[in-house]
Amino acid sequence: MADRRVTAALLVIGDEILSGRTRDTNSHYIAHYLLQIGIETREIRVVPDVEDEIVAALNALRARYDYVFTTGGIGPTHDDITADAVAKAFGVGISEDPRAIALLLERIKPEDLNEARRRMARIPHGAALVANSISKAPGFWIGNVIVMAGVPAVMQAMLDDVAPKLAQGVKIISEAIDAPGFAEGAYAAGLAAVAKAFPDLSIGSYPSIRDGKFHNQIVLRGRDAAMIAKAAEKVLAVLRDLG
Amino acid sequence: MADRRVTAALLVIGDEILSGRTRDTNSHYIAHYLLQIGIETREIRVVPDVEDEIVAALNALRARYDYVFTTGGIGPTHDDITADAVAKAFGVGISEDPRAIALLLERIKPEDLNEARRRMARIPHGAALVANSISKAPGFWIGNVIVMAGVPAVMQAMLDDVAPKLAQGVKIISEAIDAPGFAEGAYAAGLAAVAKAFPDLSIGSYPSIRDGKFHNQIVLRGRDAAMIAKAAEKVLAVLRDLG
Repeated sequence: MADRRVTAALLVIGDEILSGRTRDTNSHYIAHYLLQIGIETREIRVVPDVEDEIVAALNALRARYDYVFTTGGIGPTHDDITADAVAKAFGVGISEDPRAIALLLERIKPEDLNEARRRMARIPHGAALVANSISKAPGFWIGNVIVMAGVPAVMQAMLDDVAPKLAQGVKIISEAIDAPGFAEGAYAAGLAAVAKAFPDLSIGSYPSIRDGKFHNQIVLRGRDAAMIAKAAEKVLAVLRDLG
Repeated sequence: MADRRVTAALLVIGDEILSGRTRDTNSHYIAHYLLQIGIETREIRVVPDVEDEIVAALNALRARYDYVFTTGGIGPTHDDITADAVAKAFGVGISEDPRAIALLLERIKPEDLNEARRRMARIPHGAALVANSISKAPGFWIGNVIVMAGVPAVMQAMLDDVAPKLAQGVKIISEAIDAPGFAEGAYAAGLAAVAKAFPDLSIGSYPSIRDGKFHNQIVLRGRDAAMIAKAAEKVLAVLRDLG
């Protein structure tokens, strides 16, 4: 089990992301969160509020990765179609779930539980509920798909509820080496040699521009701390040799 | 041509996004930018620095959308494999392009043009170059695929170079109606009726939490300003009726 990998894909559902109206901060949060518990995000997709698109993406992703986390589209309005799309993808029925209705009633007065709000209790058959400590309306978990809200605070609460129940892989460790003043083109050959010598590590070079100057960072990532330390030593030697 | 739609997909290439190390700010920037010139982003994918993954995503996306914009993976280091993946996806050769070498030499001294840096001049056969006013190393454009850098400032310069040459659709107009103090569940039925009455518009309701309270916004989007104004009037009437 030393090299057990657990993989995930994120499926972000929402026209508002694709139109550039809303900045998707959820993917970054989830990817970072999952990495801390040894789950590697291998793909992210953003699709519009169109049932066929959601179904197709969901079926492609759930076949390939250990988990698929979706965000968005589980509210009470007409454009919230995620639950129905998930039911369709799994070929199961969907109906009002008494457990979900009970949760909604913790926040909503019975006389305010109109048809729109009841939509938030529509859960695909066979799904487990995911708790929402912020606003009660639950997410759900069916097969390897975890369906969460799009509002960041609510999504984060749902992720906290789900996390302890996820299979965890061996934690991925990373070490970042700042290389200010070094050009990527200067250390690329040396870095490639290190990457070749450590095929079990993922070694990347990430340029960014600060005050008009490139400021690079080299990141080593893997599951074996001793191996990372050894490779980091080699990378530092490459930079030292450049002066 | 009044309803001409031009569509795009974004393909973000890079382990650093999937690991949660780097926040992908490029997608939001590009989606917003494209919308201003009448191009609708219909899908975004983030894939790792793995050739097969890039090739598969590229071929899926370029078959479906008018344009595919990629970011990342065109630098000088071993993990920069986008150009080769694009050549493979298109089934064309790739080699050092004299035009690209000439551009690199505007910034790099001939004696510093080592093998790693020459990699940045590897361009798939048949591609046009995309200018990089920041650091010279070009992007490229082949078929309906536009390949750009991952560093935001460089990507933005490349997008500016490409934009005037893109087919432009009819501009998408949007109107946002703030609905603070209104619960989504209260206006959902009324909003659904408006959405049904205006099938050519995309109407969404977007909740967010500020200071612990939901603060919703309703957004109407389409190509016909008069139609949007009419629908917005109906939405305002729905909110007015709620008091």
